[in-house]
Amino acid sequence: MNCIRTFGYTLVFSLLMLGGYAQKAMQNHPNIIVFMVDDMGWMDSAVPFYDSLMPLNKQYHTPNMEHMAMMGVKFTNAYAQPVCTPSRVSYITGMNAARTHVTNWTSPNKNTDADEKDYQFESLNWNMNGWSNNAKMERTVLATPLPQLLKEAGYYTIHAGKAHWGAMGTPGANPYNLGFMVNISGHAAGHPQSYLSEERYGNIPGKYRAQAVPDLEEYYNTGTFLTEALTLEALKALETPISRKEPFFLNIAHYAVHTPLMADNRFVQKYYNAGLDSVEARYASLVEGMDKSLGDIMNFLKAKGVEKNTIILFISDNGGLDHHERGGTIDTHNYPLRSGKGSVYEGGIRVPMIVKWPGVVLPKTTNNTPVIIEDFFPSIVDMAGIAQNNIVQVIDGQSFVPLLKNPKMKRADRALVFHYPHKWIHLSENEKLGINYFSAIRYGNWKLLYNMRNQSVELYNLSKDIREQKDLSNQYTAEVKKLTILLGTELRKRKAQMPILKSSGKEIPFPDDAVQ
Amino acid sequence: MNCIRTFGYTLVFSLLMLGGYAQKAMQNHPNIIVFMVDDMGWMDSAVPFYDSLMPLNKQYHTPNMEHMAMMGVKFTNAYAQPVCTPSRVSYITGMNAARTHVTNWTSPNKNTDADEKDYQFESLNWNMNGWSNNAKMERTVLATPLPQLLKEAGYYTIHAGKAHWGAMGTPGANPYNLGFMVNISGHAAGHPQSYLSEERYGNIPGKYRAQAVPDLEEYYNTGTFLTEALTLEALKALETPISRKEPFFLNIAHYAVHTPLMADNRFVQKYYNAGLDSVEARYASLVEGMDKSLGDIMNFLKAKGVEKNTIILFISDNGGLDHHERGGTIDTHNYPLRSGKGSVYEGGIRVPMIVKWPGVVLPKTTNNTPVIIEDFFPSIVDMAGIAQNNIVQVIDGQSFVPLLKNPKMKRADRALVFHYPHKWIHLSENEKLGINYFSAIRYGNWKLLYNMRNQSVELYNLSKDIREQKDLSNQYTAEVKKLTILLGTELRKRKAQMPILKSSGKEIPFPDDAVQ
Repeated sequence: MNCIRTFGYTLVFSLLMLGGYAQKAMQNHPNIIVFMVDDMGWMDSAVPFYDSLMPLNKQYHTPNMEHMAMMGVKFTNAYAQPVCTPSRVSYITGMNAARTHVTNWTSPNKNTDADEKDYQFESLNWNMNGWSNNAKMERTVLATPLPQLLKEAGYYTIHAGKAHWGAMGTPGANPYNLGFMVNISGHAAGHPQSYLSEERYGNIPGKYRAQAVPDLEEYYNTGTFLTEALTLEALKALETPISRKEPFFLNIAHYAVHTPLMADNRFVQKYYNAGLDSVEARYASLVEGMDKSLGDIMNFLKAKGVEKNTIILFISDNGGLDHHERGGTIDTHNYPLRSGKGSVYEGGIRVPMIVKWPGVVLPKTTNNTPVIIEDFFPSIVDMAGIAQNNIVQVIDGQSFVPLLKNPKMKRADRALVFHYPHKWIHLSENEKLGINYFSAIRYGNWKLLYNMRNQSVELYNLSKDIREQKDLSNQYTAEVKKLTILLGTELRKRKAQMPILKSSGKEIPFPDDAVQ
Repeated sequence: MNCIRTFGYTLVFSLLMLGGYAQKAMQNHPNIIVFMVDDMGWMDSAVPFYDSLMPLNKQYHTPNMEHMAMMGVKFTNAYAQPVCTPSRVSYITGMNAARTHVTNWTSPNKNTDADEKDYQFESLNWNMNGWSNNAKMERTVLATPLPQLLKEAGYYTIHAGKAHWGAMGTPGANPYNLGFMVNISGHAAGHPQSYLSEERYGNIPGKYRAQAVPDLEEYYNTGTFLTEALTLEALKALETPISRKEPFFLNIAHYAVHTPLMADNRFVQKYYNAGLDSVEARYASLVEGMDKSLGDIMNFLKAKGVEKNTIILFISDNGGLDHHERGGTIDTHNYPLRSGKGSVYEGGIRVPMIVKWPGVVLPKTTNNTPVIIEDFFPSIVDMAGIAQNNIVQVIDGQSFVPLLKNPKMKRADRALVFHYPHKWIHLSENEKLGINYFSAIRYGNWKLLYNMRNQSVELYNLSKDIREQKDLSNQYTAEVKKLTILLGTELRKRKAQMPILKSSGKEIPFPDDAVQ
């Protein structure tokens, strides 16, 4: 062989090798989109997450969620915490809320307790300023955030929509501090002041509100609904990594379908025509606007030729609102689930979840394994093919990637913990709705609630009683004992905060200490 | 030679070649920082841009500007337009203001004329919505923006601070539309509502103002002055391209030293102690805070090891304010220059400018060649080593890179055009200060003003009369004729808008048609 010719071959060969390496690197770092909806209930779509199609599924029009479910896997036992900031902090830290001490929603204002005052309990010194990257920042949880790891691994990281990771005056107020390179409209607030461009998304001259949505000045008075504006901005931001062939991570966290329940005029008329209560019609229009965004994103990925290398994870941050500000009758909005947002009953914590991962996830499948919001951290780390090194926190989440790769996999039972040592809103009906001062554990098909107000427990068998109507705690005392110990052990391990009695100044005991 | 050994050599060789290519690519794409100050006058620093050190130079403390000047080249005949948006749009489009029809500052509100009403002239239908990337957007100038070109060439593009490129409800309201990947606090407003974190930079509950600075919630009530917060955020954003070894373009456009003239408490005391008027002391503290930011950036580049591959361009967007809201006596704030912001006298248009380009620019040099803000576009394109292809606009600017590379280069005289067919603020003294309805041209050492109010001209020889005290128009009629024709020709070529007389509905004639 002629050495000059060899030189040529070798050059080509080594260039090919490098090319191959780059391509492999791309495959090892698929694009990842988390599509997070705010306050969306388990029943708020045409996709049935229950065994059969329910009346509420027929009320909503979500063709893009249906399409996504046909292309991916539907998780029917997916969970989040009962309110938003705890779930959002768990998502980006991998820690359970009992461990973060971010157990309630955070006020946009620093050191401001969102809890209502109570007659029985003291105010809790919880991490009311949210997440932080600064160990000296008071009342925050220190943790290495997921977007930071992705950014360091070479991902182009984009946040669009609701952030709500921490209060003004602290690092959590700014998504840049979490490792996002682009931030569109994310800040310290937990809901939009307005969805309307005509109201400048709440930036009304002379009337500043912390919830006025920032960064969308170009859309003022253009008739662009907030959900649409965020989608357009997110897609604009995606152009950059796609044109550069860099892997991207997009966290699109819609303000929809949180209050204020304003009509998305592109969709609301058909719900009025269908005879829905006016509030419910507006709510359904918010859902459909969110669904259109999902479709626009999927179409965009296809048009850009990156669909096959992009994972989409769809989830809501807590159960659907079932309360004041909704139309209709209380305790019906998540039927057959009981109660709604704020509650540790299923209506407050069970959420819609779909994962689409072309070439990995078997299309049109259903997975019944229980998963929880803190699983997103280790799962996305897994998906991105990166190391979970140099992180400062203890991870409670477990990767669900093995479940995606092997849909027949059976996992051993596992304790899913919900912890809400707070008073969300004072309403007399709340305490029978599992709202205010409750913990809960799901283990296998069993679900145990711990009512901290009176230190009582309830036990349900979810496989037979998803609506949690039949308290079995007096019948199944062995299960009660097992689950109170399990919940107590997990809360203790996570150094969970318990409410403090005004009368004695002492903490409410852990469930296994209270219930013998 | 053994072919196997050759293979090894060749692989190493080709890898080295690729490495070399990458390194060369980096060198061909140096990092670029534009450090733009708002409303900073030619005299507002310790760096003398005039022939000798003037009293104002001694009043200000700007050690970092002095350091930068020692490392780079000082342009003593650098110009901008008399107010901010025209200069900022010229900078990112390469077009002269007479051509963009963005000849005045833009209101944050769409279709809102910033001009004061006049007794003689109609309101002008100028591009009061600013820059746009949408040909259908009313009252905007369509142009391919500089950051877009840089982004497409692989630069990591960051904006921090004042944007002011267009009105709310139009694309110019959002720096993302200009090709910035990161936007920190840039929006439609032209000044900050407040510099103070204690006032949440103007985001006061219940009191929304368009000028409230967005995106800095994490700094609320932390005692961080606006200038400092923007610097910290800009440096945070720079971490990403530096760690990825990507070339970056940072446009750090401070809100300082624009009104409101609030004290930067880190620096103000020494100016009070020096006996300065209280407004002037606060102004000097804004200047020094801005200078600290420059130093922090230079130190950061050094610490990160990228100083040698980073170009910094320092400039102001117009002359220093010399008017209401300043302390002391009118027409002294830019001494020896006449007048200030808003004026086509030198005080309104001559600006401090320094360029630091390690390895290219000879340190501690001075360049007297006249340059103008629209030169930034072709110069930065040159510096970045990228093509100026596929741009939709006609470029009026000329690259000053040849002047940087060859400080002895002499350029042929060139027409620099200033055009302000507006009424900035109605004050009786304005018209003798070159403010309201003036055009001007600088050509060689000659400067001609055209007063559109009465269609008269003034002529000055700047080499002998930098303060523009001695109108030579009656003595040097040949020069008057030459410069009126030159100004008229340039204005006509650029399709400049002229004020319309209420009496006749006709446009004021171009200078060469008015003055025979």
